[in-house]
Amino acid sequence: MRDAVHQAVLEMVIEGGVDKIGIPEISRRAGVRDSTIYRRWQTRENLVVDALLAASQRTLRVPDTGTLHGDLSTFASELIDYLNTPLGDGLTRTLAYIPESEATRQARETFWASRFQEILPMLARATERGELPADADGRALMELLVAPIHFRHLLTRQPADHAFAERLATAAIQAVQTAPGVRSSP
Amino acid sequence: MRDAVHQAVLEMVIEGGVDKIGIPEISRRAGVRDSTIYRRWQTRENLVVDALLAASQRTLRVPDTGTLHGDLSTFASELIDYLNTPLGDGLTRTLAYIPESEATRQARETFWASRFQEILPMLARATERGELPADADGRALMELLVAPIHFRHLLTRQPADHAFAERLATAAIQAVQTAPGVRSSP
Repeated sequence: MRDAVHQAVLEMVIEGGVDKIGIPEISRRAGVRDSTIYRRWQTRENLVVDALLAASQRTLRVPDTGTLHGDLSTFASELIDYLNTPLGDGLTRTLAYIPESEATRQARETFWASRFQEILPMLARATERGELPADADGRALMELLVAPIHFRHLLTRQPADHAFAERLATAAIQAVQTAPGVRSSP
Repeated sequence: MRDAVHQAVLEMVIEGGVDKIGIPEISRRAGVRDSTIYRRWQTRENLVVDALLAASQRTLRVPDTGTLHGDLSTFASELIDYLNTPLGDGLTRTLAYIPESEATRQARETFWASRFQEILPMLARATERGELPADADGRALMELLVAPIHFRHLLTRQPADHAFAERLATAAIQAVQTAPGVRSSP
């Protein structure tokens, strides 16, 4: 049931944006009752974020190349490719466009906390190898890496390529290694 | 006439997003003929971007604090404040949401090229003071500075403050000073 409902949501995100997504249409496409959807997800926002998160987890694997720079470059390159798919593009625009509400806020926080949770092992390996200070702020590192990719995708539409991914990896590593403000607060 | 039309567009951006903006409604609000608008701007996208650009230029001044770090921190802080106004928020979501077309593409490029043009004197002063290499890539510098602010605003909604602005200024300056890939290509 969960897969069929997710599938229906993703198709609708790809077709035209979240503003057109209603639970009646989702239940019709997925072949389940409205009440089943409400019982499991409570709100449309929860459902949309749950579906997008599952899709991101399936699509964006966490690299293990042996170096932090290699891992970050690969992660950034795959993110660039993902944002250029109809699903990745739809996902990002949906997250940017969804109006803010308590339900959205919770779903959004769950989404980003889960995305970050997935890459923690990659950062832990870098710390073990001595490539990251033990007190480095992993979230700040990842933000410096992925923000310019989303910025280009959503706002400037400047093309992003593998060289851009590598440059961002270098800049992000440098920032957490040297700038005291990018370390975690005690 | 231009001011009245811009005003009508900005009101509509603040009220609810670009998808509801049609030339008939704009002309009604501004008290001008549809044909006048089409003659001057040709497309709805051109008009929207022209209005948003004029508003950004009025609102985001280019700082001159005496140091590059001071200028970038101030610029970033003021951008954070601007994105938290209804106009700045509407502008950014509009740019992210507007469907891609040839008209949009041109208008978008004009918008970002003009925004960058405005801050060139700030970068030139830094080069004169010896704070930036002569071949530093100013666009890359500004992208590292403003991308995380837009990323938080549009996607994670994590709060951004003055300390965040300062940290981004430090990271951006460091990246252009040391990473060879962030210098301009010859």
